Amino acid sequence: MEKVTASVITIGDELLIGQVIDTNSSWIAKELNKVGIWVTRRVAVGDVWADIWQALDEESRRADLVLITGGLGPTSDDITKPLLCEYFGGRMVTDAPTLEHLKDLFENVLKRPMIGRNAQQAQVPDVCTVLKNDRGTAPGMLFEKNGKTFISMPGVPSEMQSIMLNEAIPRIVKKYRTGHIIHRTLLTAGIGESYLADMLSAFEAGLPGYIKLAYLPNYGLVRLRLTMTGADEAAMTTEIDARFGHLKELVKEYLVTDSDIPMEAVVGELLLARKQTVATAESCTGGYIAHLLTSIPGSSAYYMGSVVSYDYRIKKEVLGVRDETLLTYGAVSEETVREMVAGILGMMRTDFAVAVSGIMGPGGGMPGKPVGQVWMAIASRERVVTKKFNFRFDRGRNIQLTAVNALDQLRRFILETGRP
Amino acid sequence: MEKVTASVITIGDELLIGQVIDTNSSWIAKELNKVGIWVTRRVAVGDVWADIWQALDEESRRADLVLITGGLGPTSDDITKPLLCEYFGGRMVTDAPTLEHLKDLFENVLKRPMIGRNAQQAQVPDVCTVLKNDRGTAPGMLFEKNGKTFISMPGVPSEMQSIMLNEAIPRIVKKYRTGHIIHRTLLTAGIGESYLADMLSAFEAGLPGYIKLAYLPNYGLVRLRLTMTGADEAAMTTEIDARFGHLKELVKEYLVTDSDIPMEAVVGELLLARKQTVATAESCTGGYIAHLLTSIPGSSAYYMGSVVSYDYRIKKEVLGVRDETLLTYGAVSEETVREMVAGILGMMRTDFAVAVSGIMGPGGGMPGKPVGQVWMAIASRERVVTKKFNFRFDRGRNIQLTAVNALDQLRRFILETGRP
Repeated sequence: MEKVTASVITIGDELLIGQVIDTNSSWIAKELNKVGIWVTRRVAVGDVWADIWQALDEESRRADLVLITGGLGPTSDDITKPLLCEYFGGRMVTDAPTLEHLKDLFENVLKRPMIGRNAQQAQVPDVCTVLKNDRGTAPGMLFEKNGKTFISMPGVPSEMQSIMLNEAIPRIVKKYRTGHIIHRTLLTAGIGESYLADMLSAFEAGLPGYIKLAYLPNYGLVRLRLTMTGADEAAMTTEIDARFGHLKELVKEYLVTDSDIPMEAVVGELLLARKQTVATAESCTGGYIAHLLTSIPGSSAYYMGSVVSYDYRIKKEVLGVRDETLLTYGAVSEETVREMVAGILGMMRTDFAVAVSGIMGPGGGMPGKPVGQVWMAIASRERVVTKKFNFRFDRGRNIQLTAVNALDQLRRFILETGRP
Repeated sequence: MEKVTASVITIGDELLIGQVIDTNSSWIAKELNKVGIWVTRRVAVGDVWADIWQALDEESRRADLVLITGGLGPTSDDITKPLLCEYFGGRMVTDAPTLEHLKDLFENVLKRPMIGRNAQQAQVPDVCTVLKNDRGTAPGMLFEKNGKTFISMPGVPSEMQSIMLNEAIPRIVKKYRTGHIIHRTLLTAGIGESYLADMLSAFEAGLPGYIKLAYLPNYGLVRLRLTMTGADEAAMTTEIDARFGHLKELVKEYLVTDSDIPMEAVVGELLLARKQTVATAESCTGGYIAHLLTSIPGSSAYYMGSVVSYDYRIKKEVLGVRDETLLTYGAVSEETVREMVAGILGMMRTDFAVAVSGIMGPGGGMPGKPVGQVWMAIASRERVVTKKFNFRFDRGRNIQLTAVNALDQLRRFILETGRP
């Protein structure tokens, strides 16, 4: 079995001047991995003819498969299609099915007249296989040269994803009889990367060359990933599951989940299994905890809602925090989050509730309450626990750290609580 | 004046298998742009010795400046430091200031014992200039070779950012007497990319070669960016401002803002200027509108709070939506968002309020109410407007589209409302 490798080229000045964050490459890598293809490089270039041309040359020398996103829009800064036509020695022709699709899209979905610029999107090099884009106007294109495969797709994530899943990957799987890549991932909380590495040094030293262990720290949590490459999927599964079982045993004290899912999904699964519900009262996180919980499909089964009490007055009038408490202890205090959590629990009548209040920065710090200080309370009808955190980052990161830690505290609280 | 170019190399398997999205490159590009340096390529490679080595060779042939992030952690999958030591022909020595910093960090901030693995982070190649990392344990390193500059930094965003701003950029600016890159960006709403391009074709044709126009569509909004390169900043500013003024005039009907700021900041500036306030009632967006609004520092001056009424019961009990309305018209209906917006306006006593209810998918669609259908209402004490949208994407994108469009509707509503 040969190892099949891929390079991803993303095209667009907006990716180089920092205006847009590239989420496509990451998605592509994940999907290719599932079919046993390893992305070994990712390159971003601007809307510059020579740079794109050179990237095509270089990446195709290195990899079997070159995936290209971006630069296919209807405007003149999008030069990828004419470039590909010249690169692969074709000439532009109208693709009848694409033109039909465009007419249908403008008539029945977008409901606006199709202008010449749009119709031009049905023009493709005659040396490509057209890949249907059922979510937009620019079709994908597949080329072959010197035994290498090139796939060009628009940069709009939903369009690229549809082309990859429905058109590109089935062709790739058919052409390359790929080996397998298997990952096993677990999430830990409450232990730093260095301590984990010390704890796991013997385990790591005992791994064969075809299994790698990676440490992926994020927001105070550390994800551990085992990756195995090979040919015989069944034998691989047996071996990696045995190693993974051993790894889980070693870190069991800190284990959050043995699936590659985010903290908000772990909490959701716990609540679903117990048929219990939760609500949130958020001050400093401004709805971000609610957003994380509701980003999981089906979360309406266990998540009732939130009161984002950004203003003092809302804490008092909606959540029932006492004036005296706010005046004596301030909005960022153990006393206030206790009253917030009691208020939201009463209002939403859920099994559990979470309340957070803190100073996210850059302004708002004061003596004894620096930027990054957060109080949180978790409660059921029987008990309340509170916890103080001191983060020391920028506003965006403080909001994310607070939310992830609140969810982790909720998870621990649920696990400590007897099933209903 | 020479054009100074940079390449960014990001190191780490997690970036290639799609487990982590790279936000560092984008941030680095934006900061370098401000000092007149153009990032022409970005390359991601895995934790593989030969691949990192080759990327260093290739990118330094192409660019004056090579920025490297990642691979500096304390675990064995982090091979960048020994590799750099060999690449630049140095040997490892202990950097006394870094060791002091580490001791201080563990003793006074992290408050846990420093283990050997951590102390090793004070080891650096003797051929580098150490760049202080005041937010973490792994220092940055600056190397020079064949007239090119190499800067290696940890992959943790806050640590990389601190090293760039405090240590790397001041040295870069001193070494390269860079030319200037000036951007002017505006945001439009309510017009597609193709229509804009048609409207602007004469303007675009009249631009000199040193000014570029780019179209950056995102969530149904299109950002337009003029970029100019040159040597004389004052003359450049005069010229680009004249062109930008012309561009604004051409798109004035669709213009949201002539600053490079997100929609939530546009709304915030409007409310601040008018000393008015807003609150939100969110069903399908689950707190995401609140999160966007509160991601802006100082938003507590105009944003009071939100009720995330994810459950039917919360719509009734907290927001006062009538049982009859929910039974007759359903939660996703004009009637329901009207009652939601009236409820939140009464409860939060703000000048404006926004309510949204919709079906974000993948489940929950029904005849006449497909996935992607959203109703929103915007209200002041005097009037209410409602609007229906039909999005057709995945859950995550539907949530984002709903939030951005709700903010745009709010912006229009505020502008149509007389100042208080």
